[in-house]
Amino acid sequence: MQKSIFAAYLQFHSMNKLLIVGTVAFDAIETPFGKTDKILGGAGTFIGLSASHFNVKSAIVSVVGDDFPQEYLDLLTSRGIDISGIEIVKGGKTFFWSGRYHNDLNSRDTLVTELNVLADFKPVVPQNFTDSDVVMLGNLHPLVQSSVLDQLTSTPKLVVLDTMNFWMDCALTELLEVIKRVDVITINDEEARQLSGEYSLVKAAAKIHNMGPKYVVIKKGEHGALLFHNKEVFFAPALPLEEVFDPTGAGDTFAGGFSGYIAQSENISFSNMKNAIIQGSNLASFCVEKFGTERMLTLNEQEVKERLKQFKSLTQFEIEL
Amino acid sequence: MQKSIFAAYLQFHSMNKLLIVGTVAFDAIETPFGKTDKILGGAGTFIGLSASHFNVKSAIVSVVGDDFPQEYLDLLTSRGIDISGIEIVKGGKTFFWSGRYHNDLNSRDTLVTELNVLADFKPVVPQNFTDSDVVMLGNLHPLVQSSVLDQLTSTPKLVVLDTMNFWMDCALTELLEVIKRVDVITINDEEARQLSGEYSLVKAAAKIHNMGPKYVVIKKGEHGALLFHNKEVFFAPALPLEEVFDPTGAGDTFAGGFSGYIAQSENISFSNMKNAIIQGSNLASFCVEKFGTERMLTLNEQEVKERLKQFKSLTQFEIEL
Repeated sequence: MQKSIFAAYLQFHSMNKLLIVGTVAFDAIETPFGKTDKILGGAGTFIGLSASHFNVKSAIVSVVGDDFPQEYLDLLTSRGIDISGIEIVKGGKTFFWSGRYHNDLNSRDTLVTELNVLADFKPVVPQNFTDSDVVMLGNLHPLVQSSVLDQLTSTPKLVVLDTMNFWMDCALTELLEVIKRVDVITINDEEARQLSGEYSLVKAAAKIHNMGPKYVVIKKGEHGALLFHNKEVFFAPALPLEEVFDPTGAGDTFAGGFSGYIAQSENISFSNMKNAIIQGSNLASFCVEKFGTERMLTLNEQEVKERLKQFKSLTQFEIEL
Repeated sequence: MQKSIFAAYLQFHSMNKLLIVGTVAFDAIETPFGKTDKILGGAGTFIGLSASHFNVKSAIVSVVGDDFPQEYLDLLTSRGIDISGIEIVKGGKTFFWSGRYHNDLNSRDTLVTELNVLADFKPVVPQNFTDSDVVMLGNLHPLVQSSVLDQLTSTPKLVVLDTMNFWMDCALTELLEVIKRVDVITINDEEARQLSGEYSLVKAAAKIHNMGPKYVVIKKGEHGALLFHNKEVFFAPALPLEEVFDPTGAGDTFAGGFSGYIAQSENISFSNMKNAIIQGSNLASFCVEKFGTERMLTLNEQEVKERLKQFKSLTQFEIEL
């Protein structure tokens, strides 16, 4: 017993650190299959839940109001996520987003965006995560993302940034500044086109590569994801599902799987990034099966492993060259 | 010398036979990059050129008018394609299609369709191809496709059918009849949805499977192709290209590569079908680089092999399970 506690202690302290920045929030979602009240959401939440499938010490930096249920915070803690970097603003209201998906689930209308406490968010990285091995900057104002990087005391092995068209429209200068400082950018196809001014994703990736990131991940939703690095390219399909129920959080779950796997494996070679893309796609394939975080909360390791096998048989072939 | 001629004779006569039915036609194409006059086109042409990259004895069954240049027929012959099944109608005009692609190249408007000699086409399978190993039924009226099957004297190892929404709209009964008789159907995503009434491609494939074909190939253009067989599924991406120049013929080139490879390898296992899907996708990736058949006419085996390597590195990963 004594020994196993010591072993667990050693293992915990030897685990790599993953620092996650992103919203912890309320979502209300409408899809063709139904609608929800305010439920647990936010990029930081999805990234954290996804990354918790790997052997890493992770922390979320975020902000909520005191309307945010303790049980949601406890839920994150129960997944081994350090929440000391989640500021709780007294008298403040938590960020709230509401959206309605169209019939094909590939597009959506935003119904409500209440920034609330997010409007004045000044991220504070917990002391013991300023030397994180991997930093996952979830979709937030580029100045918030930069501020997190400013607080680091050592250079991470990998910094990954997710962003969206909104920041290209209203904070492009700041976005380009933070993009310069990251190793990997994850972005969807339309956003890659907007950021680069190129229609061809190959050309778009090359231009974004020149903005700083050595690796460019272009997410194509149900059509999978591309990873570009110099002249190399890798493609991971989305798993063909009988039914996509709710795409909310799929991109963040992908990012959490990607960064969690890299943090665990400590290997930033291109061939290991391929594995990370597959791990991210695999976890995202579960996320869309139910509303919000519902499916991620019941997901077990056996299911993850079984579906990884499906990913393998979905894409691997035997042509001799 | 004597011996090598004999060896070549033996090799030729031991090759498997691929019977191709499809249009041999004129196309006039407009893309954002330029436009062509009447050039060589037609599903049968693209299928034949693509399949000629494999060790098979192939024949095209089709019809043209006497306005069709002898040099185009010679070109097919020079690729080892038997053209005795291409009827030349005296005083007739060759089928002509003209289309204009939109800026994203994912959709197009048909500007002109002149059926001409195709209106009364009665296919005649050449005597020595009635025992073909593989039959590739290109996109044509379902009754023409059925008529070809009626003329066969032995059961082929594999019958592949390509079709389009046009026949679902105006000859659905006949289409469903011929679909019952084939092993593989290739169809695009929108057409799969129309034919099945299901939005989910997984559900669509299951319904189409119940219509007869053991294998359902759903083509998603720049987003790749899916192969369904019972509960199994395989996905081949399209190679990300710097520029797609002209998508005309890509689907037929895919079908030609698929059926040509299967005919050569005489292996209709699911794992070999995966290889066939990759071979088809690989050849189609060249087709779209120039107008019409232009790129396929200069394509050499070294280029085909090099790009197959790209396909491998695009999709293969090393996760241990």
